[in-house]
Amino acid sequence: MDYERILLTGAAGRLGSVLRKSLAPLARNLRLADASPISTQFGQEEIVTFDLADMKATLAACEGCDAIVHFGAVAMESSWQTILDSNIRGTYHIFEGARMHGARRVIYASSVHAVGYYKIEDQIGLDAPVRPDSLYGVSKTFGESLSRLYWDKFGLESVCLRMFSSFSKPRNRRMLWSYLSFEDCARLTEAALTAPRVGHTISYGLSDNKTKVVDNSGANHLGYTARDTAEPWREELEANTPVPDPRAPADKHLGGWFCDIGHPDDPD
Amino acid sequence: MDYERILLTGAAGRLGSVLRKSLAPLARNLRLADASPISTQFGQEEIVTFDLADMKATLAACEGCDAIVHFGAVAMESSWQTILDSNIRGTYHIFEGARMHGARRVIYASSVHAVGYYKIEDQIGLDAPVRPDSLYGVSKTFGESLSRLYWDKFGLESVCLRMFSSFSKPRNRRMLWSYLSFEDCARLTEAALTAPRVGHTISYGLSDNKTKVVDNSGANHLGYTARDTAEPWREELEANTPVPDPRAPADKHLGGWFCDIGHPDDPD
Amino acid sequence: MDYERILLTGAAGRLGSVLRKSLAPLARNLRLADASPISTQFGQEEIVTFDLADMKATLAACEGCDAIVHFGAVAMESSWQTILDSNIRGTYHIFEGARMHGARRVIYASSVHAVGYYKIEDQIGLDAPVRPDSLYGVSKTFGESLSRLYWDKFGLESVCLRMFSSFSKPRNRRMLWSYLSFEDCARLTEAALTAPRVGHTISYGLSDNKTKVVDNSGANHLGYTARDTAEPWREELEANTPVPDPRAPADKHLGGWFCDIGHPDDPD
Amino acid sequence: MDYERILLTGAAGRLGSVLRKSLAPLARNLRLADASPISTQFGQEEIVTFDLADMKATLAACEGCDAIVHFGAVAMESSWQTILDSNIRGTYHIFEGARMHGARRVIYASSVHAVGYYKIEDQIGLDAPVRPDSLYGVSKTFGESLSRLYWDKFGLESVCLRMFSSFSKPRNRRMLWSYLSFEDCARLTEAALTAPRVGHTISYGLSDNKTKVVDNSGANHLGYTARDTAEPWREELEANTPVPDPRAPADKHLGGWFCDIGHPDDPD
Amino acid sequence: MDYERILLTGAAGRLGSVLRKSLAPLARNLRLADASPISTQFGQEEIVTFDLADMKATLAACEGCDAIVHFGAVAMESSWQTILDSNIRGTYHIFEGARMHGARRVIYASSVHAVGYYKIEDQIGLDAPVRPDSLYGVSKTFGESLSRLYWDKFGLESVCLRMFSSFSKPRNRRMLWSYLSFEDCARLTEAALTAPRVGHTISYGLSDNKTKVVDNSGANHLGYTARDTAEPWREELEANTPVPDPRAPADKHLGGWFCDIGHPDDPD
Amino acid sequence: MDYERILLTGAAGRLGSVLRKSLAPLARNLRLADASPISTQFGQEEIVTFDLADMKATLAACEGCDAIVHFGAVAMESSWQTILDSNIRGTYHIFEGARMHGARRVIYASSVHAVGYYKIEDQIGLDAPVRPDSLYGVSKTFGESLSRLYWDKFGLESVCLRMFSSFSKPRNRRMLWSYLSFEDCARLTEAALTAPRVGHTISYGLSDNKTKVVDNSGANHLGYTARDTAEPWREELEANTPVPDPRAPADKHLGGWFCDIGHPDDPD
Repeated sequence: MDYERILLTGAAGRLGSVLRKSLAPLARNLRLADASPISTQFGQEEIVTFDLADMKATLAACEGCDAIVHFGAVAMESSWQTILDSNIRGTYHIFEGARMHGARRVIYASSVHAVGYYKIEDQIGLDAPVRPDSLYGVSKTFGESLSRLYWDKFGLESVCLRMFSSFSKPRNRRMLWSYLSFEDCARLTEAALTAPRVGHTISYGLSDNKTKVVDNSGANHLGYTARDTAEPWREELEANTPVPDPRAPADKHLGGWFCDIGHPDDPD
Repeated sequence: MDYERILLTGAAGRLGSVLRKSLAPLARNLRLADASPISTQFGQEEIVTFDLADMKATLAACEGCDAIVHFGAVAMESSWQTILDSNIRGTYHIFEGARMHGARRVIYASSVHAVGYYKIEDQIGLDAPVRPDSLYGVSKTFGESLSRLYWDKFGLESVCLRMFSSFSKPRNRRMLWSYLSFEDCARLTEAALTAPRVGHTISYGLSDNKTKVVDNSGANHLGYTARDTAEPWREELEANTPVPDPRAPADKHLGGWFCDIGHPDDPD
Repeated sequence: MDYERILLTGAAGRLGSVLRKSLAPLARNLRLADASPISTQFGQEEIVTFDLADMKATLAACEGCDAIVHFGAVAMESSWQTILDSNIRGTYHIFEGARMHGARRVIYASSVHAVGYYKIEDQIGLDAPVRPDSLYGVSKTFGESLSRLYWDKFGLESVCLRMFSSFSKPRNRRMLWSYLSFEDCARLTEAALTAPRVGHTISYGLSDNKTKVVDNSGANHLGYTARDTAEPWREELEANTPVPDPRAPADKHLGGWFCDIGHPDDPD
Repeated sequence: MDYERILLTGAAGRLGSVLRKSLAPLARNLRLADASPISTQFGQEEIVTFDLADMKATLAACEGCDAIVHFGAVAMESSWQTILDSNIRGTYHIFEGARMHGARRVIYASSVHAVGYYKIEDQIGLDAPVRPDSLYGVSKTFGESLSRLYWDKFGLESVCLRMFSSFSKPRNRRMLWSYLSFEDCARLTEAALTAPRVGHTISYGLSDNKTKVVDNSGANHLGYTARDTAEPWREELEANTPVPDPRAPADKHLGGWFCDIGHPDDPD
Repeated sequence: MDYERILLTGAAGRLGSVLRKSLAPLARNLRLADASPISTQFGQEEIVTFDLADMKATLAACEGCDAIVHFGAVAMESSWQTILDSNIRGTYHIFEGARMHGARRVIYASSVHAVGYYKIEDQIGLDAPVRPDSLYGVSKTFGESLSRLYWDKFGLESVCLRMFSSFSKPRNRRMLWSYLSFEDCARLTEAALTAPRVGHTISYGLSDNKTKVVDNSGANHLGYTARDTAEPWREELEANTPVPDPRAPADKHLGGWFCDIGHPDDPD
Repeated sequence: MDYERILLTGAAGRLGSVLRKSLAPLARNLRLADASPISTQFGQEEIVTFDLADMKATLAACEGCDAIVHFGAVAMESSWQTILDSNIRGTYHIFEGARMHGARRVIYASSVHAVGYYKIEDQIGLDAPVRPDSLYGVSKTFGESLSRLYWDKFGLESVCLRMFSSFSKPRNRRMLWSYLSFEDCARLTEAALTAPRVGHTISYGLSDNKTKVVDNSGANHLGYTARDTAEPWREELEANTPVPDPRAPADKHLGGWFCDIGHPDDPD
C-alpha cells in the first residue's frame, strides 16, 4: 500500500465503478469524485461531487492526494463546448491540482481515439505521431501533451492509458480485437500506479485478444499482463453481426466507427 | 463460415493435401485445383485440373470464388522456364482471376526464400527489402509485389505467407529453427482467411521453435499463434546430423542450402 | 496567383506585418484580421477586426477564403485563461471556419515550443513525439493535432510551421541557431501555400544558420529553401552576451528560456 | 576510361539516344542494341539489332561487355504479354548475359513506378517496401529483385535507377517535381558506372527541383549531383495547366497518373 | 555434447560456481580457471590457477578449448588499475587465446552497466549506442567491441551477455526488475553455447520479471527463455525496503546505484 | 576567444602541426604536448613533453586548461602493448586530467576505424553499433565509450571526431572518398570547440568529396561545413592507381586496407 490517498475522478462512471473496488487495496484513503452524487460510502472512502469544469472545486479535490486516477471525462464524441469544458479544461484542472498539491503520479485515461486514424495493419507502437479521429480524440492528445509538459517541467510522473473498448463484454465484431475487460482495465491501472518508475509513459489498454492491432512493447516497464480475451464471445458475435467490410473506414481504422461520423456540431 | 467458395490451388501437393482438410469448415464449397488429377472427392468439393500456365483455364477456375488460397507452384529452385511458367505467369493468372471474378481475398504462398540472403542474427522484420536466394525466391518477390498492386489499385486483399520448412516433421538441424508443422501451416492459413482486416499483409510462417530467427510482430493482426515446435525431434536430429558450421553460407543465411546452389540452368 | 482570397490572422502583429506584404501576390484578395484595428488599407485588402475567442466573428471572417494563414495568437507563455481563449479556442474557431466555408488549405503558425524539451544534439526530425515546454507549447500541439484531424476526416490540407525565433535580427546567442529571418519566414509561408500537395505537413521554420539543430528533411516537398543566416550578427552577439552554459536548461534545450520559467499562473 | 566495352540497350529510344553520347568517353567500345535498327554508326560504336525477348540474341549481345546499361524496355503501362516479354523476360536475359559473360556491373533503368503508390509527403527513402502502381511498375520491382539476387549470389554489381520523368523539358505541373533532365540522367548513369563500389544500390533519378519528394541520401556513394531543375518552366506550366487537386490519386501519389489508370488489358 | 573442452574463467566466483555445474553436460572436458585456487575436482574437470592479467598463463589456458565461457573479471566498480588489469587486459588475453588456439565460440559476461545510463522507460533494444555508468561499464563495452572485431576479422563467434543482477535471490526493490536467477543465467549461457549460429550477438540477461525494462528480441535466435521471476520475493522486499524515488539517478536508470557513485579513485 | 587555455596533444604530429596554427585564435594560451620535443615556440604557446602513458605527467599537463584537443595517439594499427599504452591508457589519463582540473570540453580524435567493417553502401549514420577493423579501431571505441561516461556522469562535454584520411593531399583512389583536407580538419575541430552545446557528440570527419559514404547529419549542430574536396586529384590518381575491386575487403569497407591486415602481433 504505497499511497496515502488516491483521487479517482469519474468514480460513478462505467469504469470508475470498476476502479473504485480495485484501487481500494492500494491506498489508505480513496477519494471518489464525480459530477453525479455517489450515495453509498465505504470505510476508507471520501466522496466529493463537482464538475471538472469548476477549476476551484477540482483543485480543492486534489489536496492531500499523492496519486490521481483521472477517468472523469466525456467518453465519446460530443459537441465542442462539452469536449472543451469536460476534457480539455477539466484535464488541465486535474494536472494543476496535482502539481499544486504535490501528487506523485497521475494515471490519465487517454484513448485509442488519439490515434484512431491509423490502420490495423500499420501495427503502430507508442511513438507514432497522433492521428485523432474526433474532437474527443483531439482532447485526449491534449491531455497526453499536457502530461508530458508536467513531467518534463514539474517532475510529475504520469501514465496515459490509451484504452480501447472497455465494457463488461464485447458487443460487436470490432470488439473481438478492441476488447479490454474490466478486470484487465483494473490490472492495467494498478500496474501504472505501482510500477517503480514511469516518468511519462503512454500505454495501450487491451486484453489478450486473438487479433492484435498495436505494438505495446514500449510500455513493458509497467508490468501489465492481460489475462482476459474476447474469444469466448467470438462465436456468438460472428453469428449475430455482419462480416466487416475491410475497405470501410469504420473497419479498417483503429478508431472504428469514430472514423465514420462527421462533425458533432453539424446539423443532422 | 464466412466464405461461399474457396479455390485451393496446388491441392494435390504436400501442403495442399493438408489445407484441403483444414479449409473445409471455412466455406460452403471448396474448389480443388491442381495440374495432377485428384481422384477422390468429398461432399462440398469441386475438382478442376489444369496447368497454372494456362491463362484461360486459370481464370475460369476463379469464377464464383470469394477467396483463393494459392499454393500451386513449383516449390523449389528450378529452371528459369519452369519458374516463369508456373510461378510468375501462374501467379499473375490467379490474381487476374481473383480480380475479374470479384474475389475478396487471396492467400498467397510466398516463402522464406524471398529473403533468404539475410543472416539469422539480422532478426529481420517484415519491412526489410527483399533478398531472394534463388530464381524461385525472385518469383516469390514477384508475387508479393503483384499482390501489393492488386490491393493498392483494385482493393483486393491479400496475405503473403513466407513459409519456412513445412513438412510432416523436421528433417535436419536447420529445421530445428525453420520448421512449420502441417497443423501450424493450417492455422496460419485459416488466420489469414478469417482476420477481420488484412489489406496487404506479409507474414512469416513458422512454428514456435526454440531458436527464433525473424520478427513477425508486424503481422500480429492475423491472430496466428503457433502451437507446435521442432523440439521433440532435437535429440534425434542432433545425434544423426553433423554440427553446422556457422560460417558456411547454408548455415548462416535464412535461406539455408538455397544459398549454396548455383544457377539452375548451368550445366553440372 | 492560385488563390481567390487569403485570410491572414494576426495581421497587425510582428510577423503579420511581414506576411501582409509577401502574401499580396498570391491571391486576388487579402483579408487582414486582427484584434487590434488596422488603419491603413491597400487595394486588394479587406480589413476585419475581432477577437479569435469570438467564435461567431471568427467563423464569419473565414467566409469566401480558400486559404487561411493563421498567425493570430498569443505568441509567448501566458496565463492559462489567455492561452485557452486565444490559442486553443481561437485555433478551433479558425479550423471550423475553414471547414464550414470550404477553404482548401490552412497554414498554421506552430512553434518550436511544441518540442522545446528536446536537446540540441537529439537532432529530432518531424515525427518525434511532442515535448512542449510551456502552456503555450501545449496549445501549439493542440493546433497540430486538430489540423491532423481536419485533414484525415474532412480533407482540409494544412501545414504547421514550427517557427523558431523570427525577428528583424538575432538578439542573443541562442538566436545564432534559432534565427528565422522575416524574409525566410515569408518564403516558408509562400512555399506552404503553393506546394502542389501537402496533405498534413509539419515543418520547422529556420534560416540557414551555421548550427543546425533539427532535421527538417521530412518537409522537403514544401520546396522551401532558406536564404538568410544569423552569421552576420555573430561577432557582435558573441562580444556582447555571455558564453552559454551547455548544462543549463535554457541552453541545452530547443525551447531555450521557455524551459527555465515556471508555471505562468504561479505568484511571483 | 575504366571499361573495355559497354552494352547499351534501348539505344534508339528517348533516353538511349542521350546516353549514346554521354557513355562514349567511358569505354573503348560502345555496343548499341535496340529492337529498331540504328542506321548511323560512329567510330567506337557497334550496332546490334534484336528483341529482348529473344534469349539467344540477348545473351550473345552481352559477350565481351564488362558493363551493361540496360534501358531497353517498354517504358509505360502495357498489356501483360508485352510487359512479360519485354520487361520481365528481357531483363532476365540481360542479367543472365551479364553473368555468363562476366560483366562487372549492370545499370538498370528502374522507375518511380516501382513505388508509385506512396504519397508525396511520405518522403520515402530507398528501403521502403515496393508499392508498384502498374504492371509496368511490378516489372521494375522484378528487375530490382533479380539484380539483388545476382549480386548476393553471383557477385555481379548493379545500380537500379528509379527514374522519374526524363524528358527534354517538363511537360506538366507534376513534372515541376518529377523532372529529370537528359543531362542529369546522363550524369546519374555515369556516376553509377564509375562509383568505386556499388554492390547492389538503388537510387532515385531526379533533377534538383524545388519540390523534393523522396529521400535519396542512401545512394550518396554514387556521387551523383543534379545540376538542372524544372524551375525555368514553372511560370509557363502553371499558366497553361490547371491547379492540381491534392486529393486526386494522380496528384497525391509519386506515380502520378499511373495511379489513375485501370488494368491495361481491360476493354475500354 | 557438441564441445570437446570448455574453458570457464572465474570458475570460483558466484556465477562461476553455478556454471561449473550447468556446463558439465555440454563438453567432454571442462577446464576451470580462477585466480583463487579451486580445491575440489570432479571427473571431467581440469583446474588451472592464474591471474587474467598474466598474458602467458591466460593464453596457455585456452589451448585445446573449442569454447570459452569468460566470466572471470572484477564484477563491480573498482579502481582504474584493477579494471585495466582484470577486465581490459584480461579480456584481451582471453580473445587472443581463443584466436591463437582456434576456439569456435566465446561467451563473454558483459553487463547492464554497459548501457547503465539509459532510463527504464527508454526500453532500449540491443542496437542502442553504449552508455556505460562506470569504469566497470566502460570495460564491458571494450569487451563487446573487441569481440565484434574478432568476429569480423577472425571469424571467432561470440555472444556478449549483458547480465543484470544475478544472485541467489533478489535483494532489494530494484532487483524486482533486474533479477536474473542462477538457473536462468545457466540457461542463457547454455543457449549461447548451443545456438546453431550466433555470429556476433549481444543479449540481455534477465529472468521473466513482471517489470520488463529492455527489449531483447534482437537475440531471439539464441533460443533462451527465462523460466524464473522475482515475483515470489515482492511482498517481502516491498515491506522491508523504502519506496524508490523515480526521480533519483539510482532509481531511474538501468544501471541503478552505479549511476550514483563518483569516480572510484577519488578520495572519500 | 572563448577559452583561456587549450591543451593540444600530439602537437608535433601530422595533424597536430595543422591544429597548432588553427587553434591559436581560439584561446589566450595554447599548451602544446607531445612525446617528441617541440623546439620552436610562439608567443601564446607553452610546450610540454611527456608520454601519454605517464599518468602523472598527463594529469599535470591538463591543469589550467578549459579545453583539450586530444590528437596524441598511435595513429595506425600497432602491437597490443603500444595500443594499450598510448591509446587506451593515454586516453584515460587525458579524460581524468580534464575531469580533475575542470576542463569544459574535450575534442577527441576518434577514427573511421571505429566503424571500419561497415560497407560503403551501408551509408551508416552516427548511431550504428561500432564495428572496429583493428586493435587501433577498438582503442577508438574505448575512447568514445569513456567520453560518453564522462559526460553522463561528470558533465564533461566532448566531441569524438571520426576522422577518415587527413593528409596534405589524397594519395590513392580510396582517398577520393575518404579525404579530409588539413583545412577541413581544422574547421571541424574549431566547430567542435565553439558549438554552443555539444553534450556528447560523435561526428565523422570528411571533406566534401564526390562519393559520400556516411550520413553525418546527426552532428549538424556542430556547424561544420566542409569546403574542400578530393576532386582536383581525381584524374591523376585514377591514372596512376589500379581500378579497385569492389569485392575486395579493402575496397568494400569503410576501413579500407585496415580490413585486410591480420593481427599486428602475429609473426610475418
